[in-house]
Amino acid sequence: MSATFGNRLKVTLFGESHSAAIGIVIDGLPAGMEINEEKIKQAMRRRAPNASIASTKRKEPDIPEIVSGYFKGKATGTPLAAFIRNQDTRSRDYEKTAALLRPGHADYTGFMKYHGANDYRGGGHFSGRLTAPLVFAGSIARQLLEREGVRIAARIQSIAEITDEGSYSFSQLEEAEIKEFAAVDSGAAEKMQEKIFEAHSNGDSVGGIIECVVDGLPVGLGEPFFGSVESRLAHMMFSVPAIKGIEFGKGFELTTMQGSEANDSPVLQDGKVSFETNYNGGIGGGITNGMPVVFRVAIRPTPSIAKEQKTVDIKAMKEAALRIHGRHDSCIVPRAVEVVKCAAALVMADLWLEVYNG
Amino acid sequence: MSATFGNRLKVTLFGESHSAAIGIVIDGLPAGMEINEEKIKQAMRRRAPNASIASTKRKEPDIPEIVSGYFKGKATGTPLAAFIRNQDTRSRDYEKTAALLRPGHADYTGFMKYHGANDYRGGGHFSGRLTAPLVFAGSIARQLLEREGVRIAARIQSIAEITDEGSYSFSQLEEAEIKEFAAVDSGAAEKMQEKIFEAHSNGDSVGGIIECVVDGLPVGLGEPFFGSVESRLAHMMFSVPAIKGIEFGKGFELTTMQGSEANDSPVLQDGKVSFETNYNGGIGGGITNGMPVVFRVAIRPTPSIAKEQKTVDIKAMKEAALRIHGRHDSCIVPRAVEVVKCAAALVMADLWLEVYNG
Amino acid sequence: MSATFGNRLKVTLFGESHSAAIGIVIDGLPAGMEINEEKIKQAMRRRAPNASIASTKRKEPDIPEIVSGYFKGKATGTPLAAFIRNQDTRSRDYEKTAALLRPGHADYTGFMKYHGANDYRGGGHFSGRLTAPLVFAGSIARQLLEREGVRIAARIQSIAEITDEGSYSFSQLEEAEIKEFAAVDSGAAEKMQEKIFEAHSNGDSVGGIIECVVDGLPVGLGEPFFGSVESRLAHMMFSVPAIKGIEFGKGFELTTMQGSEANDSPVLQDGKVSFETNYNGGIGGGITNGMPVVFRVAIRPTPSIAKEQKTVDIKAMKEAALRIHGRHDSCIVPRAVEVVKCAAALVMADLWLEVYNG
Amino acid sequence: MSATFGNRLKVTLFGESHSAAIGIVIDGLPAGMEINEEKIKQAMRRRAPNASIASTKRKEPDIPEIVSGYFKGKATGTPLAAFIRNQDTRSRDYEKTAALLRPGHADYTGFMKYHGANDYRGGGHFSGRLTAPLVFAGSIARQLLEREGVRIAARIQSIAEITDEGSYSFSQLEEAEIKEFAAVDSGAAEKMQEKIFEAHSNGDSVGGIIECVVDGLPVGLGEPFFGSVESRLAHMMFSVPAIKGIEFGKGFELTTMQGSEANDSPVLQDGKVSFETNYNGGIGGGITNGMPVVFRVAIRPTPSIAKEQKTVDIKAMKEAALRIHGRHDSCIVPRAVEVVKCAAALVMADLWLEVYNG
Repeated sequence: MSATFGNRLKVTLFGESHSAAIGIVIDGLPAGMEINEEKIKQAMRRRAPNASIASTKRKEPDIPEIVSGYFKGKATGTPLAAFIRNQDTRSRDYEKTAALLRPGHADYTGFMKYHGANDYRGGGHFSGRLTAPLVFAGSIARQLLEREGVRIAARIQSIAEITDEGSYSFSQLEEAEIKEFAAVDSGAAEKMQEKIFEAHSNGDSVGGIIECVVDGLPVGLGEPFFGSVESRLAHMMFSVPAIKGIEFGKGFELTTMQGSEANDSPVLQDGKVSFETNYNGGIGGGITNGMPVVFRVAIRPTPSIAKEQKTVDIKAMKEAALRIHGRHDSCIVPRAVEVVKCAAALVMADLWLEVYNG
Repeated sequence: MSATFGNRLKVTLFGESHSAAIGIVIDGLPAGMEINEEKIKQAMRRRAPNASIASTKRKEPDIPEIVSGYFKGKATGTPLAAFIRNQDTRSRDYEKTAALLRPGHADYTGFMKYHGANDYRGGGHFSGRLTAPLVFAGSIARQLLEREGVRIAARIQSIAEITDEGSYSFSQLEEAEIKEFAAVDSGAAEKMQEKIFEAHSNGDSVGGIIECVVDGLPVGLGEPFFGSVESRLAHMMFSVPAIKGIEFGKGFELTTMQGSEANDSPVLQDGKVSFETNYNGGIGGGITNGMPVVFRVAIRPTPSIAKEQKTVDIKAMKEAALRIHGRHDSCIVPRAVEVVKCAAALVMADLWLEVYNG
Repeated sequence: MSATFGNRLKVTLFGESHSAAIGIVIDGLPAGMEINEEKIKQAMRRRAPNASIASTKRKEPDIPEIVSGYFKGKATGTPLAAFIRNQDTRSRDYEKTAALLRPGHADYTGFMKYHGANDYRGGGHFSGRLTAPLVFAGSIARQLLEREGVRIAARIQSIAEITDEGSYSFSQLEEAEIKEFAAVDSGAAEKMQEKIFEAHSNGDSVGGIIECVVDGLPVGLGEPFFGSVESRLAHMMFSVPAIKGIEFGKGFELTTMQGSEANDSPVLQDGKVSFETNYNGGIGGGITNGMPVVFRVAIRPTPSIAKEQKTVDIKAMKEAALRIHGRHDSCIVPRAVEVVKCAAALVMADLWLEVYNG
Repeated sequence: MSATFGNRLKVTLFGESHSAAIGIVIDGLPAGMEINEEKIKQAMRRRAPNASIASTKRKEPDIPEIVSGYFKGKATGTPLAAFIRNQDTRSRDYEKTAALLRPGHADYTGFMKYHGANDYRGGGHFSGRLTAPLVFAGSIARQLLEREGVRIAARIQSIAEITDEGSYSFSQLEEAEIKEFAAVDSGAAEKMQEKIFEAHSNGDSVGGIIECVVDGLPVGLGEPFFGSVESRLAHMMFSVPAIKGIEFGKGFELTTMQGSEANDSPVLQDGKVSFETNYNGGIGGGITNGMPVVFRVAIRPTPSIAKEQKTVDIKAMKEAALRIHGRHDSCIVPRAVEVVKCAAALVMADLWLEVYNG
């Protein structure tokens, strides 16, 4: 009942981890917009499992087939739908343990909400795999924004307690993007990756924080109250499995600042209003103020771990022990960087179209 | 364009700080639901300015007049609309400085978005005053939830760097609610209030963190992806002016935990599934799991301060200095406690009605 | 739950016939749009009861008070709310017969849907009186359209079996508008009014057909499928109490034409594409084609009649006889002309803003 | 931007006549609902081209592939997506005449709205072919309703001027459904089919009227104003290409009746409220009253005809003559019967879920 998101750029998401296909319908792309398929593939690749950093071994070529709304290299203006066939699905892995609720997963809530009718294989519709069509759609939204001079970049700010405290320029963030592990400081990056391998060796997992910045935005996107930029971005981000916190600008740190510090003072720059600082993350009254929109999301450790865990057998209604075999990421933060950027692109493109109409 | 929020319980918010009235329309209340007007008044009073803690001196009796949808003490099932007349509006206070962008306020973004046509007096539609009708509506939503055994409580967790690190039971939170200053530990509460008066004395302001807990929820509220409980609560919370961060359960702290720690293990309790811990804040896969929903919001320092600040005169396009006179809170956190609870009630009642249909 | 309509220009309707007030919130008006209050009053007057044509004697000054979203004669861009106080409400008229279901009214469905909690006085929320705020909002939408060269006119095409078969130019329709009885041909108008008085004398009522034309529209408003101009206009029209049919262009008559007749052939006119005929009412594939949008709505006879009618006492669950006293129109078609135009304006302005963004 | 319809049962439609596939996403099916695939196939067959009645020769096996939301024969409760591969698409037929606007088609409005980027082949997204996924989804909605005792039937009431004036019981309508040509009276059916062949022989086409009845509905579906049953059904019906009029109950005929005739009088039947007549089509105040919902839709003649027609070459901006070759129905009314029933089922199931929650 909540598969659809957006006002002017609407996406409708569908699929399960082990169903025939996953996919998305995008409604509201400007007619005649050129779509660069190579950029879509790049985005898909950056989200794809990556052996080097203790990622799942599931092989997913994940090439979306666009079946409508795309003609002669351009968006037609009518709904663009794309499918990704599910392959390499070892459903039997799941049948054996179908009744054992995997801790940290939606097995229990899914079972209860759907009265046991949900597709439990690999998490079904709750699978992180559903972020693949989100990346597909978001990479198109990002192209729409780029056309208008709006760029998005993100970096890994922390993995477990390893934090890159640095403050970076937008171009430094963009450089991080092309790395396999999207942290800016290479020393920090190395320690973070060690942390991931350490968790992997222990049959455990780790989480981290991703910082995302949207640059080049016009003043005036977003609406007061229920249409605030923060509301819309947060709504989308909390749709991404594993995200448990979000903050804008200095976020929680603002609560320890005095008003005189926290207020971003307007100044004149090249005859235009700008701001001396950007502690409020480029948003005032829910509306973009022309400064970069900055936010950070907290990604919890991957729930699937090799260690034995306590759980409940929901059919037998007995406590049980569970050891999850199969192919899982020990840390999804590196792959989530692309998801966060693409999800942000969907929101910002939607906000942009509300004001500029494509 | 985003004055309306909710799927099954829809609220539509209107008004400006100095317009004739502010108000709200609530659509979707179950027909025949009894409404306790005394409880509404209590909620309104807890949000009202409070002289004892360095709050605005603006006197607002703020008694909402219900003009429709309410008959013989019950909701009729058709739209319930209520108005609060604006009184004690010293509009002249604002006319003098209309062109000076108040730092931290939406003056600049409002001016740009609405091409100068917005009502700038007292922040206009962006005013925190608009949370009064939100509290009105939320206090009714809370009654709807209470009827079903769902209760909401909140506490001040920190003011500036003064934090009450304690971990409290739900009934302790409920006891805090009836205090004028809703912190659980009275020692911490005293230090927090000192901090507020200190900021006030310095012509400055402070922010803080509010923790909110929803208890007694059934399993199965919320939807995967764009209808997740986190998405819906965050969307609403970021509609409340001054909120800049939100986290669920352990939130950002989850990023420093191992998967084996962060996963809440299912256990059997009284023949039902429960969880050993509640680090994920009562939500799995975006859906309530029967544990209390726990979240924390970051509230930045009040932007209106007595200290002189740098700014820009938007009409003259000149840099300028601004000293804000008038009546302002040095810390809105104490008043925001009621707003957070009532806003959460609107979301949880909406989610409840999606599953149980009133 | 369905008090809100529109995508870019959203209206939220509230009130009951005998509640304290009725009103509407309009969200999405272009910031800075000048509003001519005199035009609003004219529209309100044309919808108001009119003694000369056997209309209700209820006196409703019906002057809406705008309480927000309007500043210095212009729309601010944030929600514009207005309410109309209910006066001259003889609630006792209804208390006596509260349990007697008035034939043709929503008494039974309202009672059942709202479990007896609905405000039954004067039809409550179902009252035709709720079209007053619709006319208020629509008259503003009409001003928005007029600013863009889009004009709306309507005429009474038939009352009972008296039909004005004429085919008229848009300016002839506009001339009819300023008449008290908005039929073009004065001979037909006279017969129609006689028909109304005849029904009135018999303690009965009559209905009729209104034709509405929207002129000056650009090509390209509306969307295929669920956003078709026909879908959107019909959705709105069937919100207006008493409308039971709608047709576009030649409508039902198209079913007796051959394809070679029914197709409107494209032609060139002044170097632009136009159409030789307009049998499809200015809409192709759900989208405006630049020709006038033409539709007709069927308005059934007023259900409140003086004649004794058979009914059921819903409390006693007994069959009963009912004679409706009080003040009622013997034909609401003359007053509905303004409602149809204003309701159409709301839809067309919404469609216009979807493409042109205000 | 308007590919999505529904509140509780949301469908999202995509595809073009000659794109890789057409399809639909259904969100909100009750988890665990059994789906009878044979019934889906029957519905698809009844909509399919049928040689015997001068229908298109395009061969479309049109077997939808369900790719998600369906597990072990039941709806999972998460989005059910299905697509139908386009086959037998002779795209070259269209390339030759791409610039010639086909009279009665959306070629001109599509070209203008989408700035020439739309897929023009076979009408693209505007094609009647898009009703195939609508029938797929509607046939599932119909199963949902049948589970609750709600049944839908429809009949051809007229073709051109040949009208079956009879008044039939619901079971007579249901018997008509299994016929190849869904008219009740076999004499009338024969004349109607002759009319279609006559039009076909002349290289022309005809339209007609379909009457649809929904039986077994509970009292209380639908909402006042923007959620009225009439609004919702009309919105959906006008999404179906070629429908140009709709009326409920006696519809336009009500305008010639007196109030005393038009009012359906409540009576007691088996201790329950019923109505002596059903002139208002089972709806009072926008809400179902327990009587059958009855409506009629006007379907214009198929725009594609073999006769030469006047038109414009939109690229050359010259007037031109066009003779449409290819495979087209001379009357789509027989195939539209299934579309109307299935589209109605989507609306009624949505309304049902709003009240009963699946």
